[in-house]
Amino acid sequence: MIHTPYLLYLGNETDDLAVKTSRGVAQWRPSLCIGQYRNPSCPISLGLPDIDLHEAVLRGAKTLILGIANAGGVLRQDTVKDVVAALEAGLDVASGLHVRLRDQLVIADAAARYGRRLFDVRDPPAHLPIGNGVKRSGRRLLTVGTDCSVGKMYATLAIEREMHRRGLLADFRATGQTGILINGSGVPVDAVVADFISGSVEWLSPGRLDGGWDLIEGQGSLFHPSYAGVSLGLLHGAQPDAIVLCHEPGREHMRGLPGRTLPDLATCLETNLVAAKLTNPNVRAVGVAVNTSRLEAQDAQRVCAKVSDELSLPCQDPIRTGVNLIVDKLLE
Amino acid sequence: MIHTPYLLYLGNETDDLAVKTSRGVAQWRPSLCIGQYRNPSCPISLGLPDIDLHEAVLRGAKTLILGIANAGGVLRQDTVKDVVAALEAGLDVASGLHVRLRDQLVIADAAARYGRRLFDVRDPPAHLPIGNGVKRSGRRLLTVGTDCSVGKMYATLAIEREMHRRGLLADFRATGQTGILINGSGVPVDAVVADFISGSVEWLSPGRLDGGWDLIEGQGSLFHPSYAGVSLGLLHGAQPDAIVLCHEPGREHMRGLPGRTLPDLATCLETNLVAAKLTNPNVRAVGVAVNTSRLEAQDAQRVCAKVSDELSLPCQDPIRTGVNLIVDKLLE
Repeated sequence: MIHTPYLLYLGNETDDLAVKTSRGVAQWRPSLCIGQYRNPSCPISLGLPDIDLHEAVLRGAKTLILGIANAGGVLRQDTVKDVVAALEAGLDVASGLHVRLRDQLVIADAAARYGRRLFDVRDPPAHLPIGNGVKRSGRRLLTVGTDCSVGKMYATLAIEREMHRRGLLADFRATGQTGILINGSGVPVDAVVADFISGSVEWLSPGRLDGGWDLIEGQGSLFHPSYAGVSLGLLHGAQPDAIVLCHEPGREHMRGLPGRTLPDLATCLETNLVAAKLTNPNVRAVGVAVNTSRLEAQDAQRVCAKVSDELSLPCQDPIRTGVNLIVDKLLE
Repeated sequence: MIHTPYLLYLGNETDDLAVKTSRGVAQWRPSLCIGQYRNPSCPISLGLPDIDLHEAVLRGAKTLILGIANAGGVLRQDTVKDVVAALEAGLDVASGLHVRLRDQLVIADAAARYGRRLFDVRDPPAHLPIGNGVKRSGRRLLTVGTDCSVGKMYATLAIEREMHRRGLLADFRATGQTGILINGSGVPVDAVVADFISGSVEWLSPGRLDGGWDLIEGQGSLFHPSYAGVSLGLLHGAQPDAIVLCHEPGREHMRGLPGRTLPDLATCLETNLVAAKLTNPNVRAVGVAVNTSRLEAQDAQRVCAKVSDELSLPCQDPIRTGVNLIVDKLLE
């Protein structure tokens, strides 16, 4: 468990894509974010107060979130210096980078010296169980996708926000590094050893008896030949009662695979439902979340109406219109 | 690549199940086995000459195969002593145990001191690629199963033997520890990081232009909630032209999961074919391999006839009757 509240790191990044993770945390957990920490020359802002490390500690910050991902995934020397300074100032540091903080001698030494904790959120937890597929108590929703990076995390978080707005018990369960940093805990399911995929999700979302929902972030796609194994194990481990299909219209090919077209939505949804029945025969679809960020408002509306009509399910863009109709369907 | 020929280790084991891996190597690679090495009190034999370490080296043995798996997966002190003696005598040592040889200080030291190699075959290779699903040259067969441990490795090896008997080019591609020790190479697909499942199989079975077949050992089952992710990634990475369904009749439940019944064969086969089409639209089923070791000869024959009739495919027990009809169908 990563301690909150957070100071979000932007460092010297100049590219909006590179601070995607810090931005995700600011967007979905604003109340946990004390401020942002950046070099004076950094042109990017998350709209949070700029504060330095010592001020952050004085205001109660517990962890510096290294929510950056520059091309190559390397940790630059200026960032290493900032991390050491943060540890010295009294902050834990959490990172979603592929390069592990614990493998940087200078950082590991500083953490030991100052008694601070390092979180490499791509490290899976130790001692995960093998999945058993036995039905657990509680209710679960899983987002599934036609492709990678179509907005499964955003859709899941939007559903959590909408349910909280209605006063319902619901908890986001993170399965990727950005989700884990947003949530402070989770399992990087694509980084676990293959034998433990479904078991890691059973561990992430254990039985619950309080009547609340676990809202589990999906990964990949059953139709993506690089990652479908992860998606299937995640689906079986989640044993979802409800599935939300996520999609980005207009993609020419599956992510990273020129020439490979996306599945049609009806086939993709049906394939997920059939596979999900192995561990939850009562699974049902409750909606479609489309990422229309590249479309004009009118086109976005038209796409949603068309999908909704074709699949007889509510279809919404979580960012543009929220997910109230999907949550209505979920609670039906 | 593990160097051959082998000396097979039985040590002090007293249980036939515990020497399953050594026995598999003796059964499927007799020409590579110089002899067996066991304690005088060991009641088990593989039918090979008993020779000591120095005699094995004199006769040309290159590697001691630690093909044992006692309950708990621990490495006993007497075995550690034998491993060190083997390294000193001039042998490499290969192990399929969960406990890694390299993690035993005494063994790692001895290997360094004598300049010998240690093979922990459950360690996946470094630098595996992410799968891309692009069609490769060459032809591939994959065994798939209704459950774990139904005989997929035996069926695959029997098909290789039958094809070699006919003078055909065919190579077993191992995906589990016993298969890797039998073959001297392979990928322990259930031990790779989840993101690399399909990529590891693309790496294991690259394009080939010699007209031969790659015969890929399957793992798990699409219907096993613990491991289906592994099975799906393996299926996509293998992009098989031909599938052989493997089954053991009479199981009361899926392995390790009391109460969970096995899928029916037609559903299981169809589900595999549909999923396989993602990376090879021309996939077809060529047979069913049943493990009838617990049945009387007459019952075994009756089961095979019934399955063959139901699925309109040749159905054979690889050990009892060989797989000639399945290979006939493959070559049709």
